[in-house]
Amino acid sequence: MTQNYQRIVLASRPHGTPTLDNFRLEELPLPELQDGEVLLKTLHLSLDPYMRGRMSEGPSYAAPVALGEVMVGGAISEVIASRHAEFAVGDRVLGYTGWQSHTISTGSGLTVLPATLAQPSWALGVLGMPGFTAYMGLLDIGQPKSGETVVVAAGTGAVGSLVGQIAKLKGCRVVGIAGGTTKCRYAVEELGFDACVDHHSSTLPAQLALACPDGIDVYFENVGGPVLQAVVPLLNTSARIPLCGLIAQYNSTELPAGPDFSPLLLRTLLTRRVTLKGFIIFDDYGHRYPEFAAQMGAWLQEGKIRYREDHVQGFASAPQAFIGLLEGKNFGKLVIDL
Amino acid sequence: MTQNYQRIVLASRPHGTPTLDNFRLEELPLPELQDGEVLLKTLHLSLDPYMRGRMSEGPSYAAPVALGEVMVGGAISEVIASRHAEFAVGDRVLGYTGWQSHTISTGSGLTVLPATLAQPSWALGVLGMPGFTAYMGLLDIGQPKSGETVVVAAGTGAVGSLVGQIAKLKGCRVVGIAGGTTKCRYAVEELGFDACVDHHSSTLPAQLALACPDGIDVYFENVGGPVLQAVVPLLNTSARIPLCGLIAQYNSTELPAGPDFSPLLLRTLLTRRVTLKGFIIFDDYGHRYPEFAAQMGAWLQEGKIRYREDHVQGFASAPQAFIGLLEGKNFGKLVIDL
Repeated sequence: MTQNYQRIVLASRPHGTPTLDNFRLEELPLPELQDGEVLLKTLHLSLDPYMRGRMSEGPSYAAPVALGEVMVGGAISEVIASRHAEFAVGDRVLGYTGWQSHTISTGSGLTVLPATLAQPSWALGVLGMPGFTAYMGLLDIGQPKSGETVVVAAGTGAVGSLVGQIAKLKGCRVVGIAGGTTKCRYAVEELGFDACVDHHSSTLPAQLALACPDGIDVYFENVGGPVLQAVVPLLNTSARIPLCGLIAQYNSTELPAGPDFSPLLLRTLLTRRVTLKGFIIFDDYGHRYPEFAAQMGAWLQEGKIRYREDHVQGFASAPQAFIGLLEGKNFGKLVIDL
Repeated sequence: MTQNYQRIVLASRPHGTPTLDNFRLEELPLPELQDGEVLLKTLHLSLDPYMRGRMSEGPSYAAPVALGEVMVGGAISEVIASRHAEFAVGDRVLGYTGWQSHTISTGSGLTVLPATLAQPSWALGVLGMPGFTAYMGLLDIGQPKSGETVVVAAGTGAVGSLVGQIAKLKGCRVVGIAGGTTKCRYAVEELGFDACVDHHSSTLPAQLALACPDGIDVYFENVGGPVLQAVVPLLNTSARIPLCGLIAQYNSTELPAGPDFSPLLLRTLLTRRVTLKGFIIFDDYGHRYPEFAAQMGAWLQEGKIRYREDHVQGFASAPQAFIGLLEGKNFGKLVIDL
């Protein structure tokens, strides 16, 4: 009896904001399992902003998804059949298996999750790519010192919520920027940030200045746009800017009309002697993953880090949830439960 | 008998490009020398782009010159009278004594030049602030590796000409950007650059791409504007951008009309994982001056570095020469001989 599986492919390339018709849900028969292969059933699919770049042609940090191909992405799966010596039925694995309900894999690129992991989806977030991005970007590029002011954009997001909490553990004053009063209240009351400013506010620059009376020493950048423009005048001498994302501009189809902000940006980077460094976590820091995993695991166990996930039920919801992610509609790390 | 001296003060703040009436030449009586003071006669006054920033109010890397005060600047002087134990008549000294024909000093901040220095004005250039800027910016921030492509803006200027030659000594392919065919020919034929592109050309981006078939690994930035916009698309993964000046925008009175180039700049810094670092040479690297001086001195003695100075005669010429410097009219390090 042939079993079917579902997958979501890139049907067309978005012009600007993705729409539902850029995606297509397909149902196909599962091929028969061969020797050396495992059959995976997806439990949790990770949705992350970087996927927007893969939907477009042109240079990004990795090759674009081809039209008609499965959307890329990390996922947690369970081994439901195995003809591979290293995987047993019941194992839970992390892999870049993409947007599909089942995957046949040779095992390449799969990591078996320890049975001790409290919540398997954490491997997509606090203990995975977003957590690793927050940890290395803040500590290696940001170099925060006790007493300094750290500002983090998307401060309640998968990455930003961890950046702020790690900065607090290092003794910094932490100011988040987030969308809306609910997220801002969460950042202060639950995550322990010293302040949080709503980026929807028309007085963002003034509010941010009030929240940073001693200026900004580290700005963790994953947003761009008006948030960056509010941050730049407040940067202190020798400030550091880890740059891991620019979600505010992912859906842009052309450069903004102007004025051209770049001369002011560059002048500030020059006169305040700022370091700005773009990074792609596994390309730049892959060799330091064990250090991160050990430290973050310890912080979680000690209750020093809180992590919020936004679980959306049902595989077919993935396109709509992803579109919402780019607009900041999620609250915490976005995960699709299958 | 009272002796008079001349000084040039900031008469008014420029709006955009400085004009001659922003400066005022004054003649004043020299005060009598007191115990613990030396009387200096200026021999060579250094003119450098950073001085434009000091003419304006508002944040730069140092406090602005006050209206009616002497313009700042480094100079080489001769001690012509001394009531100070550490200075003898005939000593030649380097100091930030400003735009004036004579200075009375307590000795603070003065460095006596070694009598062995072939040409005293070198202490303002190849062995001074511009040389030190080129050396540390290229080697410490740029981290050039043999075989990499280094692009240097203002490639025949006081800083750029040294950046390119040091990069050649490190085994790099060096592409200069300079204003006009005469400067470009000099960069290739005299300085040994592999190529040089004229920034006046309307096809600068295409020419730069042709000159950099393997992309750009290090871009030494001291210009900004259209030159930077031509460089950005060619940056390689993990490129480095030392940023020490932005002469193309010093005279701007407002941000350019647009489009806003900053999203494209940031996107490139992110996806190619670029490091951009602003620096102010003595603030960031003062402690490494001896290392620089020893190495540059050795290269000069071995004939490995060429250095061109553009000497303008007469103190009263300084304002006009400085205005020309901001327009690229000098050819080599600009020095006023008194």
